[in-house]
Amino acid sequence: MRFPPDLRDSAVPGSDREAPGIGEAIYRLLAEIFPICRSVAGEGVRETLRRLQREIDLTIHEVPSGTQVFDWTIPPEWTIRDAYIRNEAGERVVDFRDCNLHVLNHSAPIRTVLPLSELKQHIFTLPDQPDRIPYRKSAYDEAWGFCMAHDRLIALPDGLYEAVIDSSLTVGSLSYGEYYHAGTSEDEVLLSAHICHPSLANDNCSGLALLTLLAKAISRRKTRYSYRFLFAPGTIGAIAWLARNEEQTARIRHGLVVSCVGDGGGPTYKRSRRGDAFIDRAASHVLRHAAPAPVLLDFSPYGYDERQFCSPGFNLPVGLFQRSVYGSFPEYHTSADNLDFVRPSHLAESYAMIESILDVIEQDFTPLGTLLKGERQLGRHGLYAGGDGSPATQAANLAMLWVLNLADGHHTLLDIAERADVPFAQVLAVARRLQSHGLLQA
Amino acid sequence: MRFPPDLRDSAVPGSDREAPGIGEAIYRLLAEIFPICRSVAGEGVRETLRRLQREIDLTIHEVPSGTQVFDWTIPPEWTIRDAYIRNEAGERVVDFRDCNLHVLNHSAPIRTVLPLSELKQHIFTLPDQPDRIPYRKSAYDEAWGFCMAHDRLIALPDGLYEAVIDSSLTVGSLSYGEYYHAGTSEDEVLLSAHICHPSLANDNCSGLALLTLLAKAISRRKTRYSYRFLFAPGTIGAIAWLARNEEQTARIRHGLVVSCVGDGGGPTYKRSRRGDAFIDRAASHVLRHAAPAPVLLDFSPYGYDERQFCSPGFNLPVGLFQRSVYGSFPEYHTSADNLDFVRPSHLAESYAMIESILDVIEQDFTPLGTLLKGERQLGRHGLYAGGDGSPATQAANLAMLWVLNLADGHHTLLDIAERADVPFAQVLAVARRLQSHGLLQA
Amino acid sequence: MRFPPDLRDSAVPGSDREAPGIGEAIYRLLAEIFPICRSVAGEGVRETLRRLQREIDLTIHEVPSGTQVFDWTIPPEWTIRDAYIRNEAGERVVDFRDCNLHVLNHSAPIRTVLPLSELKQHIFTLPDQPDRIPYRKSAYDEAWGFCMAHDRLIALPDGLYEAVIDSSLTVGSLSYGEYYHAGTSEDEVLLSAHICHPSLANDNCSGLALLTLLAKAISRRKTRYSYRFLFAPGTIGAIAWLARNEEQTARIRHGLVVSCVGDGGGPTYKRSRRGDAFIDRAASHVLRHAAPAPVLLDFSPYGYDERQFCSPGFNLPVGLFQRSVYGSFPEYHTSADNLDFVRPSHLAESYAMIESILDVIEQDFTPLGTLLKGERQLGRHGLYAGGDGSPATQAANLAMLWVLNLADGHHTLLDIAERADVPFAQVLAVARRLQSHGLLQA
Repeated sequence: MRFPPDLRDSAVPGSDREAPGIGEAIYRLLAEIFPICRSVAGEGVRETLRRLQREIDLTIHEVPSGTQVFDWTIPPEWTIRDAYIRNEAGERVVDFRDCNLHVLNHSAPIRTVLPLSELKQHIFTLPDQPDRIPYRKSAYDEAWGFCMAHDRLIALPDGLYEAVIDSSLTVGSLSYGEYYHAGTSEDEVLLSAHICHPSLANDNCSGLALLTLLAKAISRRKTRYSYRFLFAPGTIGAIAWLARNEEQTARIRHGLVVSCVGDGGGPTYKRSRRGDAFIDRAASHVLRHAAPAPVLLDFSPYGYDERQFCSPGFNLPVGLFQRSVYGSFPEYHTSADNLDFVRPSHLAESYAMIESILDVIEQDFTPLGTLLKGERQLGRHGLYAGGDGSPATQAANLAMLWVLNLADGHHTLLDIAERADVPFAQVLAVARRLQSHGLLQA
Repeated sequence: MRFPPDLRDSAVPGSDREAPGIGEAIYRLLAEIFPICRSVAGEGVRETLRRLQREIDLTIHEVPSGTQVFDWTIPPEWTIRDAYIRNEAGERVVDFRDCNLHVLNHSAPIRTVLPLSELKQHIFTLPDQPDRIPYRKSAYDEAWGFCMAHDRLIALPDGLYEAVIDSSLTVGSLSYGEYYHAGTSEDEVLLSAHICHPSLANDNCSGLALLTLLAKAISRRKTRYSYRFLFAPGTIGAIAWLARNEEQTARIRHGLVVSCVGDGGGPTYKRSRRGDAFIDRAASHVLRHAAPAPVLLDFSPYGYDERQFCSPGFNLPVGLFQRSVYGSFPEYHTSADNLDFVRPSHLAESYAMIESILDVIEQDFTPLGTLLKGERQLGRHGLYAGGDGSPATQAANLAMLWVLNLADGHHTLLDIAERADVPFAQVLAVARRLQSHGLLQA
Repeated sequence: MRFPPDLRDSAVPGSDREAPGIGEAIYRLLAEIFPICRSVAGEGVRETLRRLQREIDLTIHEVPSGTQVFDWTIPPEWTIRDAYIRNEAGERVVDFRDCNLHVLNHSAPIRTVLPLSELKQHIFTLPDQPDRIPYRKSAYDEAWGFCMAHDRLIALPDGLYEAVIDSSLTVGSLSYGEYYHAGTSEDEVLLSAHICHPSLANDNCSGLALLTLLAKAISRRKTRYSYRFLFAPGTIGAIAWLARNEEQTARIRHGLVVSCVGDGGGPTYKRSRRGDAFIDRAASHVLRHAAPAPVLLDFSPYGYDERQFCSPGFNLPVGLFQRSVYGSFPEYHTSADNLDFVRPSHLAESYAMIESILDVIEQDFTPLGTLLKGERQLGRHGLYAGGDGSPATQAANLAMLWVLNLADGHHTLLDIAERADVPFAQVLAVARRLQSHGLLQA
């Protein structure tokens, strides 16, 4: 038996999570941080973090350039002021002020005049998507370059062009933001989004905005687990955090990397390296009930920062939540990943699914019936949903029978939800109702 | 390799189980008990049990009204003498004497005159199957009512009607029947059929008649296991039996609930709550070889009395054997579940499959070859079926090779039958033949 | 991710295994031994073994007629000099000199004149393949007979025929050949091919020739394992070897029976009785990457000499490698299994697959990364294959990431290859490269 998806099922009465307009709120924050020109290290990340600080009490950490973090070295900070290609008439034919993707991210400075044929060696385009500007970066090899639409490039007449990138690569620091919400237990849930991409809306302004507003909501709750939100540059930011918090990672019981949550694809969950961690079961369960065809992937060492959290020396129970699978949508890493590509409704759905996953983590317990012999007489306890034979009534009665049948002290609510193929939220609601009627131990 | 179904394969030479005409015999007994108006408690059940006593030495147990059995209380006894709806002309437009489904089962008495509009609130019909009378009961809530064909109801003119139900609900007892056959061991096989439904042929006159004649056949055999046959009202009858025999349930090694075995659907086996009990393997194996597309279901807490035997405090290895899955055939719980719906041939097939399942339980053992190194030279032992290459010959040789290859003291005959995908009966016959030739230890 | 099959991927640089023209070389040897009239015991086997001795230092063992080997007795030796059926005109209508399949293999001598109707009782044909001569034998029951094309038989006019089989069945011995290559360890890999069939090219001149040239290649290598090659008559030859080497079988860690490797079907691997032996994993892995639709079969006690090696008293980890599944091709056991049916290219493919399986056995180890925390910065180590986004580059980078991610001391290279779904040879090459760069322990 499978239920129609109703994400709000997973809401626990009395919680604040059914914020009306959460999709719009995430979208507004996303749109505010979208124009900022982030890179792996520099003012773009800091400016973004400061904006997030207006929502939550975020701590900003700085890791100095040159610091060794495991196999990596923190690169210099990148400052970008202007960049353009000017033709002989003095017109800007490529202009950073139009779109910050036009400059190779983390590009070295340049100021030169070149014939077009030589300049082309520093220009990246997408011949297959000729009207889109690609996103390219060169954080660890010093290089300079531009990105532009292929159509525009081939329309350029031969001749001399002035190429100017007014940037600097200087000793500074890599920045990341961290927000910690203390729960009853020191056991932690890690929620992480990468912050190093410039103006790409889905990848990952969407993840940053969603997690920020989720953190804001959680900050007002009493929770069982403590929650750690991490907004760090991809790869090296996560590695830097791991290097500085090696001891503390032992507290992480569950985790999600969150990226690309504003498009209409998926939903996608990629399992942790362990493959059978509780987060893997919880997320798979939620997605199966939230969507007709969720994408459930086994771990692979390619993707986002789950690669770092799941490196063999840590092997943390951290999965990846997305809508479309990374790299699988044509807008990926192009100028088409813009504010039109993401939608408040998709952001709201993603938010609800992540909340549902956290509900499983927070609310799961092992129920024990107060009488285990023979079936309960539901009618006598005022619990029988009626015998009208409608699918909804049958499902309600059946969910109750499942919980009672498996409430033997050896099955958690998630175990029951999986075996009964009923959404966890419904199993939880049934268990609470049975508790209140004295049929399960409180 | 898969063999054509031949249920008689499972017969052990010399047994009495290939009773010719067993289907007809079951049908005749079914037809005799069909007209009786059974309910959860009352004379209908007792009359049925007395009829079964003419076949087997059944013990009839009585549990007084008001007795607490786990979460349930034994209801009053129901006596029904007459019931009808009479129009202003004094004609019976609904008459219990035509069909005992016309009265709400376990209905309180009533004698009143009402306009049709008010009377309708006490009438159940099936708008989707307008020519059939539904079966409805109200054993635990006092209520009165009638059931009738929808076509007939809508044909009734407005006006006053006399509604009479000449019943009584009185302190008495719930009855159930039990038959015990002692085997070599005190370990028991439980076979159970519910007895509370009125004139419904498949559900469950079929189960009652089949198990009665099976008990009669088993009573004449020497068996390894002891067999307990239970004919009790659904739900509360099984619960009452469990409450009164709590200690003894530990002896139950295998069990089947048997219902709806006279239609041509399925066959269906629903696994016990354990899911991997021996009965689950034996029944699945037999059904896979007996039918091209058997229905093998996982346990769910909805169905027949396996719900009670598999309640968590007992968790007995008891599955459910049926033809069509309960509730899935349109005749279910209607007047169309009559003597035309069930067939001697289907009853004979069901009987043979249950016998085959019991054969696995009775006959399984762990063979040990007398020489385990290298293949046996079958020809030298007069065991080679010949090399004519026909499928039957190849299958016979291969079955022998499988038994010899796996007769290492670590595989039972059922293990071998499952791995070789050969019917248990054939594996058993091969093992006996190899024993007689000295190739397996006796 | 799945890679296009490139069998040479599995080659280890510097080895001699990529012998150009190996398929042709196997075919030439196969063609040389094809005409010999082998049987279970006699000069045919010895002549074949002597030919193989010209390639490898083969030891020929003799087991005297009448010797008891487990359940079997070594039969007399068969010598065949001539056989024919002559019509009344004195013309040979069936002639052993045309094709040695014409005589029932291991046939008793006869010299008689019979009417056709009586002679037919001693003639085997294939009515379904009327132009082909069947292969039939009678090694354990004394009988005489001929095999011929069905078309030819029905064309024979009635009348008297002279049937002559100039053979003798005499006390002698059963012969088998054994070649042993000592590796670093006394743990052995067993490679076995049956040698009892007369002029059948695929079954099993192909297996004999392939294993002989494989033994020749291995004889020149330093190997971890010791290798034992066995060329013995089917069934009784393998049983005789087991009976004489009972103690030594404990050294066999992996094994393959090799037969019918010259046709274009399959490839087929049939698992050992254990089902999860290392050879089962290695062979399944190699075949999955070598062919689009390999046939992977569970063990059954019918087939070739894996039946003996996997008899319960030995239960050795020995599987069967073939192209087409035995008995599944129409040429099987007929005169159409001739030199046209097998092809050098198929033999070369079979050889390469077996080499790849042996590579897994020889080369597997458990890598351990020198830094397990966070991802490695491949670029800094000169290991990044580039970011051109081509499938090949992506696959190369991903294979490296997989090895690094799973090099935690708990996964062998085969574990990694299976999980990453990357050919073992590629995983091995990556591991060697990472070792040479100091990223894995040497």
